[in-house]
Amino acid sequence: MSYFPEIAPPDSGSAAAARDRQARLTKPAGALGRLEDLSVWVASCQSACPPQQFERARVVVFAGDHGVAAAGVSAYPSEVTAAMMANFAAGGAAVNVLAGIAGATVRVADIAVDTDEPLSPEVGAHKIRRSSGNIAVEDALTPDEVVAAIEAGRRIADEEVDAGADLLIAGDMGIGNTTPAATLVAALTNTEPVAVVGRGTGVDDAGWARKTAAIRDALYRTRRLSADPIALLRICGGADLAAMTGFCAQAALRRTPVLLDGVVVTAAALAAERLAPGARLWWQAGHRSTEPAHSLALRELELTPIVDLGMRLGEGSGAVVALPVLRAAVATLATMATFEEAGISEG
Amino acid sequence: MSYFPEIAPPDSGSAAAARDRQARLTKPAGALGRLEDLSVWVASCQSACPPQQFERARVVVFAGDHGVAAAGVSAYPSEVTAAMMANFAAGGAAVNVLAGIAGATVRVADIAVDTDEPLSPEVGAHKIRRSSGNIAVEDALTPDEVVAAIEAGRRIADEEVDAGADLLIAGDMGIGNTTPAATLVAALTNTEPVAVVGRGTGVDDAGWARKTAAIRDALYRTRRLSADPIALLRICGGADLAAMTGFCAQAALRRTPVLLDGVVVTAAALAAERLAPGARLWWQAGHRSTEPAHSLALRELELTPIVDLGMRLGEGSGAVVALPVLRAAVATLATMATFEEAGISEG
Repeated sequence: MSYFPEIAPPDSGSAAAARDRQARLTKPAGALGRLEDLSVWVASCQSACPPQQFERARVVVFAGDHGVAAAGVSAYPSEVTAAMMANFAAGGAAVNVLAGIAGATVRVADIAVDTDEPLSPEVGAHKIRRSSGNIAVEDALTPDEVVAAIEAGRRIADEEVDAGADLLIAGDMGIGNTTPAATLVAALTNTEPVAVVGRGTGVDDAGWARKTAAIRDALYRTRRLSADPIALLRICGGADLAAMTGFCAQAALRRTPVLLDGVVVTAAALAAERLAPGARLWWQAGHRSTEPAHSLALRELELTPIVDLGMRLGEGSGAVVALPVLRAAVATLATMATFEEAGISEG
Repeated sequence: MSYFPEIAPPDSGSAAAARDRQARLTKPAGALGRLEDLSVWVASCQSACPPQQFERARVVVFAGDHGVAAAGVSAYPSEVTAAMMANFAAGGAAVNVLAGIAGATVRVADIAVDTDEPLSPEVGAHKIRRSSGNIAVEDALTPDEVVAAIEAGRRIADEEVDAGADLLIAGDMGIGNTTPAATLVAALTNTEPVAVVGRGTGVDDAGWARKTAAIRDALYRTRRLSADPIALLRICGGADLAAMTGFCAQAALRRTPVLLDGVVVTAAALAAERLAPGARLWWQAGHRSTEPAHSLALRELELTPIVDLGMRLGEGSGAVVALPVLRAAVATLATMATFEEAGISEG
């Protein structure tokens, strides 16, 4: 694949300096566990040791409807997507509240909500279409649309990095979106439908059966294409997923760290890693959701979630809950005293 | 046991109101996972729904040396304990930095540091003695001292609650303190030494063997006393552990929620639950450390850690890393929009 320029890895010199500094902080070697690894990662992403605390952590919620919702794969009707857009704008959704706790701000992008009237010109600036196609029976996007959606995600990442974002979080909103996400993970990893399908936001047994059937039918149309992530995003993904793919890859290209959220974002990230190999070195997994396809995608990306709290909401909510842990990691490396400073022998 | 008055449980009416409110927030039922349970718990502790965000989260680090350190059970010499007291006061230790991220403040109490000169009159206000006895060969405390230490912890809890603390975190500092902590857990749960002994702050293989021998010898002197937590604290615990026991139980008596830290605090908490049954309903486990005795004590207390980051530092550091998750739980319940407020049908 040469869709993306080559992704340079985070800076190994800063990582080495960070490991050296960790060894001199006033605590036993390794005693901060995962916090130490995370601090080294941030230093390498920033090419700086000690690293700086995040000053502009930014969540972008990619919203889109999915025709497959008509197949009864969700516990909610598609109208909820547009209603939730207003809730995000009013600050009443989970991600708004959690971002407030974590010191992040939230942007919402209408990529493919099933309405002709985006919430505002800004929210609709990168809109691709009204709802992606019903992947159970048709392709999600046209060839032009999938490229336009990936490019939209790239532009959004550029806009945020240019505005000073030093940490990016992608979130998702869209009734039915765990169905294309699970399908994408299955297609990218050659996995059977039943191994990827989950309850999403809480579908019942009959809905679960319909969801599995939809995934099976969509997968059938993707056979022999597992090495072509753009084709997969077009056939069994959607505009919001393609935009998240572009966003995650472009963030890596712009040397900006990313906290991944749940199954929808991670499915898109898995496609991004295939399009832009090495992009994953710029990402951490914020949390582990209850969706089976999420764990599968995380394993494929070799990412270990920071928290595991049984969340399954999307919106970026799990990643934002993990953000204070990442901040804690940065703070310890940046501001703890060294043994020398504290006048303590290293034992 | 009637050492403590009866502990009243958190308010079940507020818990029910919290569960009802969670069901009306703009997210699928259960989608916030553990955050929902934590929010219900805080509401029940505060007897209020929605609960209030913590305004005065307070860490108390209980410091004490242990004669058993002379047996070579730690990677560090006892002098480090006193040196770290100065580091806490200067704000350079991990718990200081992590408390800053989590919006908590830190108090240090010299309960049994091996010095005649506490860092300040305030820090030494509740001091019991210089170092607890070497439990491998002698009792840690006299009968008078163990009661005085429990009472010291109770007074510290009272001081903090009276000063407005709405969340308490106990932390520990003391070279060698995982040895009495593991012994205490073994004695309280009738477990073999090898099943509880861990690496502490990083002792080598020979040190691990010495630690196991010390625990075995101390346990031998506690036989037939597993139902007498005060005797166990006296024989195989220490003044700092006894103070933490009093602190955790008194916090419950004062209806103040507690986030437990690692193996040392949780060993003391297990003793506190035996002294004051039901106190554990006022506690949450902040994190899971790498110490085997910690997992054993958590299981006995039926507590599930909020985060699991491979930390093994003590000081309250793991609990403080978990505090933002608890804040996130409170914030979602307190400030997310309901379906009715957002004008969304509940699907």
